[in-house]
Amino acid sequence: MNAIDPDLHQVMAAIGRRARAAAATLAFAPTEAKNLALIAAADAVLAGSEAILAANAEDIAAAKERGISPAFLDRLTLTEARIAAIAAGLRDIAALPDPVGAVMASWTRPNGLEISRVRTPLGVIGVIFESRPNVTADAGALTLKSGNAVILRGGSDSARSSRAIHAGLLAGLEAAGLPADAIQLVPTTDRAAVGEMLRGLDGNIDVIVPRGGKTLVARVEEEARVPVFAHLEGICHTYVDKGAELVMAVNVVVNAKMRRPGVCGATETLLLHRDVVATHLKPIADALIARGCEIRGDDTVRRLIPEAIPATEEDWRTEYEAPILSVKVVDDVGAAIAHINRYGSHHTEAILSENEANIARFFTETDSAILILNASTQYADGGEFGFGGEIGIATGKFHARGPVGLEQLCSFKYLVRGNGQTRP
Amino acid sequence: MNAIDPDLHQVMAAIGRRARAAAATLAFAPTEAKNLALIAAADAVLAGSEAILAANAEDIAAAKERGISPAFLDRLTLTEARIAAIAAGLRDIAALPDPVGAVMASWTRPNGLEISRVRTPLGVIGVIFESRPNVTADAGALTLKSGNAVILRGGSDSARSSRAIHAGLLAGLEAAGLPADAIQLVPTTDRAAVGEMLRGLDGNIDVIVPRGGKTLVARVEEEARVPVFAHLEGICHTYVDKGAELVMAVNVVVNAKMRRPGVCGATETLLLHRDVVATHLKPIADALIARGCEIRGDDTVRRLIPEAIPATEEDWRTEYEAPILSVKVVDDVGAAIAHINRYGSHHTEAILSENEANIARFFTETDSAILILNASTQYADGGEFGFGGEIGIATGKFHARGPVGLEQLCSFKYLVRGNGQTRP
Repeated sequence: MNAIDPDLHQVMAAIGRRARAAAATLAFAPTEAKNLALIAAADAVLAGSEAILAANAEDIAAAKERGISPAFLDRLTLTEARIAAIAAGLRDIAALPDPVGAVMASWTRPNGLEISRVRTPLGVIGVIFESRPNVTADAGALTLKSGNAVILRGGSDSARSSRAIHAGLLAGLEAAGLPADAIQLVPTTDRAAVGEMLRGLDGNIDVIVPRGGKTLVARVEEEARVPVFAHLEGICHTYVDKGAELVMAVNVVVNAKMRRPGVCGATETLLLHRDVVATHLKPIADALIARGCEIRGDDTVRRLIPEAIPATEEDWRTEYEAPILSVKVVDDVGAAIAHINRYGSHHTEAILSENEANIARFFTETDSAILILNASTQYADGGEFGFGGEIGIATGKFHARGPVGLEQLCSFKYLVRGNGQTRP
Repeated sequence: MNAIDPDLHQVMAAIGRRARAAAATLAFAPTEAKNLALIAAADAVLAGSEAILAANAEDIAAAKERGISPAFLDRLTLTEARIAAIAAGLRDIAALPDPVGAVMASWTRPNGLEISRVRTPLGVIGVIFESRPNVTADAGALTLKSGNAVILRGGSDSARSSRAIHAGLLAGLEAAGLPADAIQLVPTTDRAAVGEMLRGLDGNIDVIVPRGGKTLVARVEEEARVPVFAHLEGICHTYVDKGAELVMAVNVVVNAKMRRPGVCGATETLLLHRDVVATHLKPIADALIARGCEIRGDDTVRRLIPEAIPATEEDWRTEYEAPILSVKVVDDVGAAIAHINRYGSHHTEAILSENEANIARFFTETDSAILILNASTQYADGGEFGFGGEIGIATGKFHARGPVGLEQLCSFKYLVRGNGQTRP
């Protein structure tokens, strides 16, 4: 961890204190006020689209001067359509049920005590993101709706764009009479501000959510002194079991790899039961190769697929984020599970099977956040789960696992109603 | 944090690796095997009671030589009755439903994907406890039933007693064919072993549960590099609202303070609405004083209760763990909530009230793990909640809050069943 800059430390500490104060108000803000803020923010973002585009153009010009990749430029670039999507996202989150106060469970004890467990906000969320300016709105909206204050620290490349979008969020908070400090954007692009956040701002950040590449997530996981909701990698697998339906296997594997090869739920390794190699391998490989996918296979695979190049030990541990698939033949579902638990990243795995015993074993013994039967691993997504959005996907086992949506941004408390009970 | 002793580091690292390996088996051990192990352990503890009592006698003799307090001696001492209670506790946990695999929620998406969220074990739990040898059995049983491996590190004063009880647990594991490493007792009383556990044994401890006094919990919360389930203090409040029923108020407050003044759910501060001071204060105070409770009050309280001594600012922050109660008069429920959120420890607070608006406000705005209406704060207990036992009470907001029972020792995963869905 870097040395502490006393001036920056004070600036950040003050941000933390203001966030904590805002969180205390936000924790029991009425649903109507939170929704009004989101809808007013959507209006303000649309009304301010000219200013947002102008700010974005400045960010893009500065980034181009430094020289950036096309993928980076794409993530950074805003358009009228993307701004409309940001506003629509804000409205969508306004339309979701308020998680705060929802009863998660309730029961009555023999002594008459009525106990319920209800959702409460977590407190202050720190979000550290890179070049995607839309995260400003997404993360701000999800944290607001879940009754949490947020401290947003965006990448310096998108600083002007983020500030312009943030202005819209502030207009929404103001319209609803909610504290402006509920959604703070760190005003400095000093990288040491990230270090300050990872140290927790004197206990005023309750959880950190990194949104960005592996380098950022690795730094956050290494340095954070507060809980982190994140996944470092998505080394996802699809296992084709003995007896798997052929057409389904071709369609699902192609989608799992090629729909968007760069997302965290993309399949990186295909595992094939020995008994379906003769029937399933070639059709699957041909469909993938036809779509431009490179195959890296073990010896059995290479005997049947001449285009396949040899897979090394390193391939089983690699998240390609590219149209490349490693393929391995396994003896049975147990061997598939063992491979996944050894080489995977505990994110998302699929089994294509018609055998209930094998499905049950795969679901029980595979140690990953999301297990999928007969569908694409690319369904690993809070929106696809019906969460109405996600702030990220977590592979840790604490508190949040899998897609992190509104409910996962909450804690809970117990409410107990009695009529004079004293404990014997 | 202390320097690392390379020999001890290796011993502890090996314990961590063995625990992780055992956890992988235990995670999907059948319910029947876990229950059999618990029942066989209960039998073994009873059958070995002579050896346990002999070991305990040695611990007691050694402790007395060093000079210990009567309270400490009481916690350390085992009797036939206490051993029978330990065995009964093991059977009780065997009789509880298995949390692992339980469906927490399930829903179907418009595209036909059926999603469910099911409980899974957390992994490896580290339990650091002081002089109560029965924690060996309690913690071992709760972690086993929840499919977790546990590393137990007991105080040196109770080392022989803990080892004797641990032998019974090992006999239970063996009878059920479960790995002995599922419940490991750290063999050294070297205090540096605690530091090793707090560093997480190379990622092989997933959560630490401290069971003991404030000094231990404070050290664990300060030094731990893994999540901790704990509460440092139980500064619990009872607020008597305007209109509270008098007889109930007397009974509940007396129970909340005096049933067992030393437990974490004991009320430490009584808050009284200004309008009930004339009617309620004296009957409550008289009942407490008659039972030997010291009253420390603000000026209003001292005018009406001559026995009361002045409360200082420090009293509002103090967990007495003794028959002492601080008493303060407040203007309304809002002032009561503000006092609790400022001075409390976010553990358990009660409101005695017949006013639904005030109850709702107290339940919403008070930031504590457990809020109780018209009953004693001493109900803050996993057993009283129906959890069938607890490994502790947590005041943090992550993952577990309030009593930590079998469900709170679990994580979850998502199971998704499709029939060939590919993501558009």
